[in-house]
Amino acid sequence: MPQRLFLEDLAEGQRFVSASRMVSAAEITAFAARYDPQPFHLDDAAAMGTLFAGLAASGWHTAALMMRMVIDSVPVAGGIVGSGGELIWPRPTRPGDTLHVETEVLEITPSRSRPERGMVVVRCITLNQHGEAVQIFTPKLVVPRRPAG
Amino acid sequence: MPQRLFLEDLAEGQRFVSASRMVSAAEITAFAARYDPQPFHLDDAAAMGTLFAGLAASGWHTAALMMRMVIDSVPVAGGIVGSGGELIWPRPTRPGDTLHVETEVLEITPSRSRPERGMVVVRCITLNQHGEAVQIFTPKLVVPRRPAG
Repeated sequence: MPQRLFLEDLAEGQRFVSASRMVSAAEITAFAARYDPQPFHLDDAAAMGTLFAGLAASGWHTAALMMRMVIDSVPVAGGIVGSGGELIWPRPTRPGDTLHVETEVLEITPSRSRPERGMVVVRCITLNQHGEAVQIFTPKLVVPRRPAG
Repeated sequence: MPQRLFLEDLAEGQRFVSASRMVSAAEITAFAARYDPQPFHLDDAAAMGTLFAGLAASGWHTAALMMRMVIDSVPVAGGIVGSGGELIWPRPTRPGDTLHVETEVLEITPSRSRPERGMVVVRCITLNQHGEAVQIFTPKLVVPRRPAG
């Protein structure tokens, strides 16, 4: 586990790259069955006649996998805590895709009212094995300052 | 299952209200163990010393539950297919919370290039049993027009 980073350790333009992770058809349909049971996320044949033209992961599955990869690759002190942000799915995750996440620090704003922390805007791009973005998420994170002493 | 709605059946200001759904501590920690294994999503005692001050669901768990409730309450023809949107978590989902989703149609834009469909911006507010928003998601959906004939 790398050293934990406080607000003072981050800089605009700083980048973090996650490990890669293959996504199977079985995982895609298991997630969808529970949270997003629509034909194009459940069955390849049923998905053929839809906008997706073949089995596609729920966007929320792509998002959940992104979260796990960000936790494992962006070692912010206090963990990854966000209040939300813009979420875009330019194309779906497909069965057999191998994903990774590239995170870049965009903006660092120390809090005026809470001297012990600040807000950090990052952009987390989830890429497939062809280098195509399947998700772009731009959240605001809460990051603690290094404790005095 | 209610009648499927095409682009022509939607109007700005139209609203849909989902059924309610209780979220247990066991579900919160099971989701987190797989996708967002941080102490404040896994263990109440460990969460006490964090920003959350007690066990809190992963925002992605709140989002996945929202999706299920929207599928079951917004009967758009062709299913709920979105390209993304703004996602905000004003406060976390807590163990024992009972959630429902209120969806409102904000904007309807027929496609110029694709006469068979249009884009619809909706706002999906996920509320807890106290009427407090735990999530506000404002996606763009792809909605088909009613087929001719």
